[in-house]
Amino acid sequence: MAFSAAEQAAMRRALELAATPGVPLGPNPRVGCVLLDEHGATIATGYHRGAGTPHAEADALTNAGDRARGATAVVTLEPCNHHGRTGPCAEALVEAGVRRVVFAEPDPNPEASGGAATLRAAGVDVEAGLFAAESGLLNRFWAFGLAHGRPFVTWKFATTLDGRSAAADGTSRWVSSPAARHDTHRLRALCDVMLVGTNTIAVDDPLLTVRDEHDLPLAHQPLRVVMGERDLDPGRRVFNDDAASLHLRTRDPKFALVELFDLGRRHVFLEGGPTLAAAFLRAGLVDEIVAYVAPMLLGAGRSAVADLGITTIADAFRPRVTDITVLEGDAPNVRLTLAPGEDR
Amino acid sequence: MAFSAAEQAAMRRALELAATPGVPLGPNPRVGCVLLDEHGATIATGYHRGAGTPHAEADALTNAGDRARGATAVVTLEPCNHHGRTGPCAEALVEAGVRRVVFAEPDPNPEASGGAATLRAAGVDVEAGLFAAESGLLNRFWAFGLAHGRPFVTWKFATTLDGRSAAADGTSRWVSSPAARHDTHRLRALCDVMLVGTNTIAVDDPLLTVRDEHDLPLAHQPLRVVMGERDLDPGRRVFNDDAASLHLRTRDPKFALVELFDLGRRHVFLEGGPTLAAAFLRAGLVDEIVAYVAPMLLGAGRSAVADLGITTIADAFRPRVTDITVLEGDAPNVRLTLAPGEDR
Ligand SMILES: NC(=O)c1ccc[n+]([C@@H]2O[C@H](COP(=O)([O-])OP(=O)(O)OC[C@H]3O[C@@H](n4cnc5c(N)ncnc54)[C@H](OP(=O)(O)O)[C@@H]3O)[C@@H](O)[C@H]2O)c1
Ligand SMILES: NC(=O)c1ccc[n+]([C@@H]2O[C@H](COP(=O)([O-])OP(=O)(O)OC[C@H]3O[C@@H](n4cnc5c(N)ncnc54)[C@H](OP(=O)(O)O)[C@@H]3O)[C@@H](O)[C@H]2O)c1
Repeated sequence: MAFSAAEQAAMRRALELAATPGVPLGPNPRVGCVLLDEHGATIATGYHRGAGTPHAEADALTNAGDRARGATAVVTLEPCNHHGRTGPCAEALVEAGVRRVVFAEPDPNPEASGGAATLRAAGVDVEAGLFAAESGLLNRFWAFGLAHGRPFVTWKFATTLDGRSAAADGTSRWVSSPAARHDTHRLRALCDVMLVGTNTIAVDDPLLTVRDEHDLPLAHQPLRVVMGERDLDPGRRVFNDDAASLHLRTRDPKFALVELFDLGRRHVFLEGGPTLAAAFLRAGLVDEIVAYVAPMLLGAGRSAVADLGITTIADAFRPRVTDITVLEGDAPNVRLTLAPGEDR
Repeated sequence: MAFSAAEQAAMRRALELAATPGVPLGPNPRVGCVLLDEHGATIATGYHRGAGTPHAEADALTNAGDRARGATAVVTLEPCNHHGRTGPCAEALVEAGVRRVVFAEPDPNPEASGGAATLRAAGVDVEAGLFAAESGLLNRFWAFGLAHGRPFVTWKFATTLDGRSAAADGTSRWVSSPAARHDTHRLRALCDVMLVGTNTIAVDDPLLTVRDEHDLPLAHQPLRVVMGERDLDPGRRVFNDDAASLHLRTRDPKFALVELFDLGRRHVFLEGGPTLAAAFLRAGLVDEIVAYVAPMLLGAGRSAVADLGITTIADAFRPRVTDITVLEGDAPNVRLTLAPGEDR
């Protein structure tokens, strides 16, 4: 495998295009494409903007027009081979006269893979594996969905050093520091669903939008989902016009996730409360935990984590630590990121 | 102020001597002394080995004999001026013919200070302030005792990410990681009292000794103190011969600390349980908190911190964070060090 300097630079650019902010997560992968001429100069670029819009290769080919003939296509994912809402990209590249294709990752979707073979059969020179890890990271939740048939679930909670999420009288503003709250908004913005239980809506009436440092909502908002069987007052803030919202009248975590998957959602940010989070944990449906620990003691109050059915220390839930970060400030908070592991 | 290179090197050596392992904390400061000739060469060294033994200056003068005449004495603390169990060091230095004295810190003890003035009055050249911060750190707990008439109290606790110190059935081996437990033994070794409540002895029967990585007791052991009014079985391990121990039959934290101060103790390591720790916290008698947070969830079980009388978030106990350290291992634990602050 040999990639020219121009191809390497083009792949970096294609990854940037694929990660363009505002491109929704949705049910499709993030893909970028750069077309190079025989001297390694850029002819055109393209990227996928979400379901129902052209694939990255088609976008780049449209931008290139006739100049695509003889080009090298540098693309972050193996060109697709299936007739979906758009024609197969492998064929489109052949028809446009592209001579060489460099891609990062093979397409893990069985319905779409085989593009490389189609290209080779048509006499196109194909090389794979350039920045494969980077492309994989970009499409981590999409690939997770393909493999599991449900969205990836990140459960976030905030706690005092002694495991409380609120004081005895129910007050909880604020346990976590401004830096930790800002960090939470950053993570919310990376998801396409915000999920809470009905009781959090009834008690706290949260907005569940993603806001910037001035507390203004961002342009792109995750879907706000409330889960639970009871009726909710339609005047609650979660149902306002700041973003779309949905009440899933179920207590079945697996069913709820499949519903959200079918709505094209791939990354759920579960923000509680403790009851709903415990239900997901007990069902083995938490894929990542983000815990913010505040340097504060309450000595009493609501537990940050509800009963998990664990009675003895040998059965403690011991997720693997993937990151520990100190969020600086007057009261530094510690963010721990944990992976529950495949076996749960 | 000008200090020669030889004097700076000598002060570093004197600080090392003062910190000689095995020198008990006790009621006296840690002090080291180096005598230099006019060329900056070392004539003799000395250090204080604890109450009832010679002061560092006297130790060095004895080691030097006649060679002290005309020397420079480099000493980590202002030479004392009082007639205690040994004569005043200021006078001894004058009598030995020492021509110049360089010291790090003025003596904060009103009964002992004034040595610099005595020396100057006798025509000795005196300079202060070389490595004063280092000497201050070394005698931090001694100075605290002088200022407050009680020992400094470090409260240590270990907790899961959700604030539990044991599972619902009482099992707690182990919440913290091997690295965190090793770190705890390191901190125990820096104290001169291990303190727990009677119920910890009744329930857990701990040894309360300081042990090395092979679980063998170190030569120097803190005093093991149990606090509470109930009778205890003399067969409990805390009363064995591995180290000295004491049962303080009181529930008054202030009284207990003054007792320990009068026994010459300057740094108490409070290891629980939650009930006794809460009593010290509520009395404002915790000067440092060391919390080990393990990446583990229990969802139920014993709280790491007992009721502190706090009912609303505005009254949360918010100690200042002085350090956050990750203790690496299969399950990295986070150690937070906190200072409750003067106002409590
Ligand atoms: N510290 C934090 O990070 C954080 C984050 C969010 C919330 N909170 C706090 O948590 C509190 C609310 O927590 P909570 O635990 O009482 O409520 P919750 O988890 O938000 O909602 C619980 C409700 O969800 C419904 N539900 C849906 N699926 C369920 C299932 N599988 N098992 C059980 N119930 C299910 C049930 O109501 P139905 O009867 O409707 O089915 C249940 O009563 C709020 O006061 C809020 O302040 C803290
Ligand atoms: N995770 C950790 O770091 C850690 C550390 C140590 C212990 N522990 C756990 O804690 C458990 C024991 O904790 P605990 O809270 O039950 O017992 P504790 O704090 O060790 O002892 C409580 C007893 O101390 C006496 N006492 C003395 N002064 C007091 C005061 N001012 N206020 C109240 N009581 C006072 C009382 O007994 P009298 O009637 O005798 O006066 C009281 O019942 C053990 O099971 C142990 O496993 C955990």
